[in-house]
Amino acid sequence: MTVTSPQGFRAAGVTAGLKASGRPDLALVVNDGPLHVAAGVFTTNRVVAAPVVWSRQAVADGVAHAVVLNSGGANACTGPEGFADTHRTAEHVAQALDTSPGDVLVCSTGLIGERLPMGLLLPGVDAAVEALSPDGGDAAATAIMTTDTVAKTVHIAGDGWSVGGIAKGAGMLAPGLATMLVVLTTDAALTAAEADAALRAATRTTFDRVDSDGCMSTNDTVLLLASGASGVTPEPAAFLDALAQACAGLARALVADAEGASHDIAVTVVNATTEDAAVAVARAVTRSNLFKAAVFGNDPNWGRVLAAAGTVPVDVAPFDADLLDVSINGVQVCRAGGVGEDRSLVDLASAREVQVLVDLHAGDASATVWTNDLTHDYVHENSAYST
Amino acid sequence: MTVTSPQGFRAAGVTAGLKASGRPDLALVVNDGPLHVAAGVFTTNRVVAAPVVWSRQAVADGVAHAVVLNSGGANACTGPEGFADTHRTAEHVAQALDTSPGDVLVCSTGLIGERLPMGLLLPGVDAAVEALSPDGGDAAATAIMTTDTVAKTVHIAGDGWSVGGIAKGAGMLAPGLATMLVVLTTDAALTAAEADAALRAATRTTFDRVDSDGCMSTNDTVLLLASGASGVTPEPAAFLDALAQACAGLARALVADAEGASHDIAVTVVNATTEDAAVAVARAVTRSNLFKAAVFGNDPNWGRVLAAAGTVPVDVAPFDADLLDVSINGVQVCRAGGVGEDRSLVDLASAREVQVLVDLHAGDASATVWTNDLTHDYVHENSAYST
Repeated sequence: MTVTSPQGFRAAGVTAGLKASGRPDLALVVNDGPLHVAAGVFTTNRVVAAPVVWSRQAVADGVAHAVVLNSGGANACTGPEGFADTHRTAEHVAQALDTSPGDVLVCSTGLIGERLPMGLLLPGVDAAVEALSPDGGDAAATAIMTTDTVAKTVHIAGDGWSVGGIAKGAGMLAPGLATMLVVLTTDAALTAAEADAALRAATRTTFDRVDSDGCMSTNDTVLLLASGASGVTPEPAAFLDALAQACAGLARALVADAEGASHDIAVTVVNATTEDAAVAVARAVTRSNLFKAAVFGNDPNWGRVLAAAGTVPVDVAPFDADLLDVSINGVQVCRAGGVGEDRSLVDLASAREVQVLVDLHAGDASATVWTNDLTHDYVHENSAYST
Repeated sequence: MTVTSPQGFRAAGVTAGLKASGRPDLALVVNDGPLHVAAGVFTTNRVVAAPVVWSRQAVADGVAHAVVLNSGGANACTGPEGFADTHRTAEHVAQALDTSPGDVLVCSTGLIGERLPMGLLLPGVDAAVEALSPDGGDAAATAIMTTDTVAKTVHIAGDGWSVGGIAKGAGMLAPGLATMLVVLTTDAALTAAEADAALRAATRTTFDRVDSDGCMSTNDTVLLLASGASGVTPEPAAFLDALAQACAGLARALVADAEGASHDIAVTVVNATTEDAAVAVARAVTRSNLFKAAVFGNDPNWGRVLAAAGTVPVDVAPFDADLLDVSINGVQVCRAGGVGEDRSLVDLASAREVQVLVDLHAGDASATVWTNDLTHDYVHENSAYST
C-alpha cells in the first residue's frame, strides 16, 4: 500500500548518516517502465532550494527514471555549491542506474542554509541502489521522515491499474518549512501531458488546501511517475479521481501529523461568489493565530472567525458581513453576523477533528481548507529545533 | 504625561462593573475647547464593531466633544441591538455634558459577540462624568486596559503646545483582537483637515507598522482631539513630527507589552524598489510563525526569513533571491542568498529587542515593521482566555 504497490517500481530507504539520530535518511524510487512518464508541482516560493531548481527543470520534458530523496538537510540557500551538490547527486544515481542525470529527480528536506555532507550522501546512494526492491516503498517512506511521527503511504486501486504514494511533512504545501515531499506512482499508461494535467488538478484541491502554519516551504515537491506496466490506459476522469483520492489521503495524513497539533480543523466556506473567493476566506480563517489558539483551548470563538473573514478584501470575496453564519461542529454559533446558538453547546474537547462552516450568503461556490490548532507543542517544536 | 497634559482636557477612569475582576473599565476624555476638532482612523476589517460604525460616522464632520471608552466587552457582532447600545451610550454622555450625541465618540474592547451590560455601563458613565478632572488622564489609561500589564501614556512637548496620549493593546492595529484603542490630545490650534492629515500620516508609519500576531481587530481605533487651548498654531511639519513621536512611543509600548511575548522584533527592509515593497517584505517576515517561534528559541534562523520573503509576489516587491542579505543583531548571517557569518555569533538571549535587517539590493526605499516572538505564553493567553 505504498509507492511500490503499482507495477513497475522499486524503492529503497537507507541510512546514509545525514541525520545525527542515525535514522534512515536516504530514499530512492525507480521507475522500471516500460513508460518513464513524470510530472511535478513545486513550491511557489521565490526562494527555492537547489533540488527544486534542478527537478523543476529535469521534469519539464515529462520523463524521469528515478527520484532520490534525502532528509537531514534541505540544501536551500546554499548557493552555486549547493546546486552542484544536487547535480552531483543526480549524476551519481544516473550512473548507478545507467540512465541520464536529467532523468533523475532530486528532493531534499531539513535545515536551510547548510551544505549536504556529500561524503556521506553519495555512498548512501550506492547503498540505496543496492537495496532497491519491489517491496521497498515503506522503507522509502520512512527514510524521508523528519519531524513526522508516522510514515505516510497510500494506495488507490483502479480497474487493472493503481496509484501509490508516499509523503513526508509535518507542515504543508502552502506552509511548512518542515517541507512536504510527495512521490506518487502509477502503473497506468499515461502521456506526459495527461500526467501533468492530472497532477495539477489533483493537487489544486488537496495539498494546496492544507495550511498548517501559513509558512510556505522552499522545498515542497509533489512528483508523479507513471510506468505503464499495467498496460491499461484509464479514462482520464477515472485516473484523476484515483489520483485525487491518493492526494487527499496523504494530505489528510499530513494534517493529522502536524507538528505539535492537538486538533485538525476543516474550514469550509459555502455560498461564495466563486471557488477562489471561498478559498480566500477559508485561508484567512486557517491563518488566524487567534482562532487557532482558541481551538487549542477548546473555545468555539466564532468572533475570531468573523474577524479573520473580515480581513479578506471585498474585491477578492464579495460578501455582506451582516449576513455571515458560522457553525462549529454543527452548532450555529453565529447567525447573520451576530450571536446564534449558545457557544457552550459546542464540544471541541472530545474529538481531534473540528468542522468550521462559514456561510457567506453571496453565491453558490464552496471550498474547504484544512489547518491545525496553535499549541504549546507547535511553539516548542519550532523554537527548540532548527529546520 | 498623558491625555490631560495638553491644556483644555479633562478625563476620568472608573469601575462600572463590566469586568469580572472589578478593575476600572470605563474611561471618559472630554475636550473643553475652545476648539473641538477631532480626527480618527479605524480598523480596515470588514467586520467592525458597533462603536467603530458609530465613531467613524460621528467623527466625519471633524468635530467631537468627548470620547467614552469601555473595556470588558467589544460590542462586536452584536447586531442592531449592539449598535443601539452604542448610540444610547453616546446619548447618555451627551446629556451629561450638555452636548450632542453626534459629538461623542465611543470605543469598546473585550469579548466579541456579547451585548454590553447597559445597566452597569450607563451608571458608570455618570460616575465618570462626576470624576472628570484635569489630572484624570492616567485613570483613563488604566480603565481601558484588558490584557495589558501596564498603562500606556505619552506626552510630547512642542513650542507652546503639546501632544498627549493614552493607549491600550496587547495586539496591534494590523492585528490584535485584543484591540488597540488610542486617544491622542493636543492643545495646538488645528483645523479638522490638518488634524485628519496629520493623524493619517503619523499612524501610517507607526501603528500601521506594528504587527504582533497578524490578526486584525474589529475594534481598532485611533482618535485625535484638538482643543486649541494653547492658542498656538504650530507649523504643520512640527506638529506632525510631535504627533508621529507620540504615536511611535505608544506603538513601541504596545509591542513591548504584547501578550506573552519575550522578544520585540524590528524587521527592517532596505534597498527595496518602493516603500510599499519594503513594507510587504517586512510584513511577510513578521507574519512567519516559524521565524517568530525561532526567535523565541533564541535561534537566528535566517532561512526562515528568506523563506518568508520569498512568499511576496514579484509584482509587489521585485528582488533577486540570490542577492538577499540578512543580518540579525548586526551579524550578517546570510550573504547573497547563501550562508554568511557563523550564526552562533548572534546573541538573541541577552536582550528583549531583536534587529533583523533584510537588504533586497533592488532600489533605495526602506521600512521597518515591528512584531513579537511566538511563545508558549502567547498560546496560553489566547487559548485559555476568550477575547
